[in-house]
Amino acid sequence: MSPKKSKLNDGQLVEIITIGDEILIGQIVDTNSAWMAKELNKDGFRIVQITTVPDNESCIMEAVDMAFKRADIILVTGGLGPTKDDITKQTLCKYFHTKMIFNQEVIDNINELFADRPNVLNELTYGQANVPESATIIQNKRGTAPVTWFDKNNKILVSMPGVPSEMMWIMSNEIMPRLKAHFSTPALMHQTVLVYGIPESSLAIKLTDWENALPAFIRLAYLPKPGLVKLRMTGFLPDKDQLKDIIGQELVKLRQILGTAILAEEDASEEVIIGKLLKEKGLRLATAESCTGGNIAHTITSVAGSSAYFKGSVVAYSNEVKEKVLGVSPATIDEFGAVSQEVVEQMAKGVLKQLNADVAVSVSGIAGPDGGTEEKPVGTVWICVCTQTDMISRRFQFGHLRNINISRATLSAFAMIKEIIEKSTK
Amino acid sequence: MSPKKSKLNDGQLVEIITIGDEILIGQIVDTNSAWMAKELNKDGFRIVQITTVPDNESCIMEAVDMAFKRADIILVTGGLGPTKDDITKQTLCKYFHTKMIFNQEVIDNINELFADRPNVLNELTYGQANVPESATIIQNKRGTAPVTWFDKNNKILVSMPGVPSEMMWIMSNEIMPRLKAHFSTPALMHQTVLVYGIPESSLAIKLTDWENALPAFIRLAYLPKPGLVKLRMTGFLPDKDQLKDIIGQELVKLRQILGTAILAEEDASEEVIIGKLLKEKGLRLATAESCTGGNIAHTITSVAGSSAYFKGSVVAYSNEVKEKVLGVSPATIDEFGAVSQEVVEQMAKGVLKQLNADVAVSVSGIAGPDGGTEEKPVGTVWICVCTQTDMISRRFQFGHLRNINISRATLSAFAMIKEIIEKSTK
Repeated sequence: MSPKKSKLNDGQLVEIITIGDEILIGQIVDTNSAWMAKELNKDGFRIVQITTVPDNESCIMEAVDMAFKRADIILVTGGLGPTKDDITKQTLCKYFHTKMIFNQEVIDNINELFADRPNVLNELTYGQANVPESATIIQNKRGTAPVTWFDKNNKILVSMPGVPSEMMWIMSNEIMPRLKAHFSTPALMHQTVLVYGIPESSLAIKLTDWENALPAFIRLAYLPKPGLVKLRMTGFLPDKDQLKDIIGQELVKLRQILGTAILAEEDASEEVIIGKLLKEKGLRLATAESCTGGNIAHTITSVAGSSAYFKGSVVAYSNEVKEKVLGVSPATIDEFGAVSQEVVEQMAKGVLKQLNADVAVSVSGIAGPDGGTEEKPVGTVWICVCTQTDMISRRFQFGHLRNINISRATLSAFAMIKEIIEKSTK
Repeated sequence: MSPKKSKLNDGQLVEIITIGDEILIGQIVDTNSAWMAKELNKDGFRIVQITTVPDNESCIMEAVDMAFKRADIILVTGGLGPTKDDITKQTLCKYFHTKMIFNQEVIDNINELFADRPNVLNELTYGQANVPESATIIQNKRGTAPVTWFDKNNKILVSMPGVPSEMMWIMSNEIMPRLKAHFSTPALMHQTVLVYGIPESSLAIKLTDWENALPAFIRLAYLPKPGLVKLRMTGFLPDKDQLKDIIGQELVKLRQILGTAILAEEDASEEVIIGKLLKEKGLRLATAESCTGGNIAHTITSVAGSSAYFKGSVVAYSNEVKEKVLGVSPATIDEFGAVSQEVVEQMAKGVLKQLNADVAVSVSGIAGPDGGTEEKPVGTVWICVCTQTDMISRRFQFGHLRNINISRATLSAFAMIKEIIEKSTK
């Protein structure tokens, strides 16, 4: 049962194999595969499977063997470190019936990389210069482990390091250009729409008629995350322009159905969307955070160039900080409690003034797992956004899981920032 | 080539299958598998493979078929939503040659769950009550999709929703207890040591003799992440107490070799380690963050109960905020620049005083990708920690990748907080 039979599997088929005991015991999360899948997808390659196996010869050999049955291209990450537990290179050598040879270019590359830090180099690092004879060797300009590229019956296997920054550099600069030159890929298009505030199944009912009328070459997926559903249309057609037109028409219909529930029409993160909006309107943001603990500020500033529209934040985890730095009145806290409309409004006004911003958002809530009361159970969150002339505050009731409450409060803060900006600049 | 032949594969073998197009196009990162792997591992189950396949019948059937060859237990997540793109339940029905029947308990569970939100319910939600006849049905107390448990020739397949909060609740409360009752698992032990500031290959050389002398039933892994190497010993022995003793002895030897480079001797995150230390010493932390943009505060407050030792933060993304809120002298910024020892020291002192804390950390740097100069290239970061009576400041030179620079600066801030606390309270 090959996935090639599915109507959407028109692109070159790729399998990603991730090697590492640390993933199989849950010590690290495999973020590489998602990043690679996204990059490959943009260029019309189709991922048929992601397989994670331990640093174990027989497991690696079996996974590679199976992957060659499913895919045209196998991208392997991990197991290339200089230490004893890493065996990917030796195992691939065995799989491809080749032997190790010494490669001077690897040494040259390592010497260049560490020109200013020669004390980091040692015999283990230099062991990286032993490479499989039958492979094409690609230099890794970000680390010591070279990339090996094997050809087998018109199929390709590439083995690269699992350190995310090295893998990303190698994929972007070496592997994607070679794969694109090697294969031609079909027209494929994704259109993502971010829908805020409608639960997945209610959304599905709202969209039933539209979804049933979608052309057969467009597939719809619902990707829920706390507080948000990403709707994704994926289409394949030989004619890219025609596909673009048709997806554009479907998008117009979606706008009519969903209206203001659409937070964005691109597959971008909320922080990128809000950043663009602030930049476009020439506004500068400040945040006053209690239960989100700096997560809104952190999320905003994870975007390069955010200093153009972000002034800063006061994380007021204690009431003392709310009073002293943000100017919240102790009497208000006494009367209404720290999680109240009155307090978030004073926090927002306070940070707007203190940090001399154009838009401010404030959050105070009970993230949990403790601290709830009957009147204000865990998950109760007040959020306020304000400008010099306008203010919106709202109470939310999220769930009982701390990190999800922090995420949902952050997302809701972004939605309210968008709301007040659009309201004020209409 | 079954992985059963490997000397470490003594536990019950588990394969995790994650179903969802959204993972294969890179729209979301699969964090479920790592969480499940960690939980299973703690109880001596061994993960042999993690497989991610699309919402496609033939791919799911093939993956399940292959997994039954490798593993005793198959845990499947995803593809159980109420919408058309989710087909896991139907596909498993076909795989196990059974048919759908109506299950009233599912409806009762859904009604109970949504007792206070009846407007969320609709016919799609109620469709969740159709379940495979041959499966044992386990109610999902956190969502609408029930869990199905299939037995096949003494092997088990469990299908559960992919929404992380639902999956976690189900695993902890329903699946792990049943698996532990069903299988007996061997003694297995992990000992993690976090090593700060020694690159992986230098560390490997430092440990060569010790590593070569390790008993055969203890395996060592190096898990590098930016600025840190996690060293993990994994051992299997029938006698758990004996294993514990031997690993304890190896740990003593490691301490002698690595000394103060050991940040912690547990598989805990840095924020948990720092949180414990602050709590134990009765100290309250404040942060003043420029290039880390609130990430230190966010990381600290992701831990439940952090309000006991965290006062708050000032994220001073603009110089104006550094001056106005933290009291940094404009003349100092003019003379030395915002990224300088003088400025981080004033930031740390300022936030210590403003937020009335016992320990403060401040960070100012150039996270990138832009903003570097010849003298202070991208990756230059100054960090200062201070108490009422002590102060340490240090310049770091990280790389050119924004998010890694933020992570490394955060980690270094944690290491310096630990350093000053241990120095001050000796």
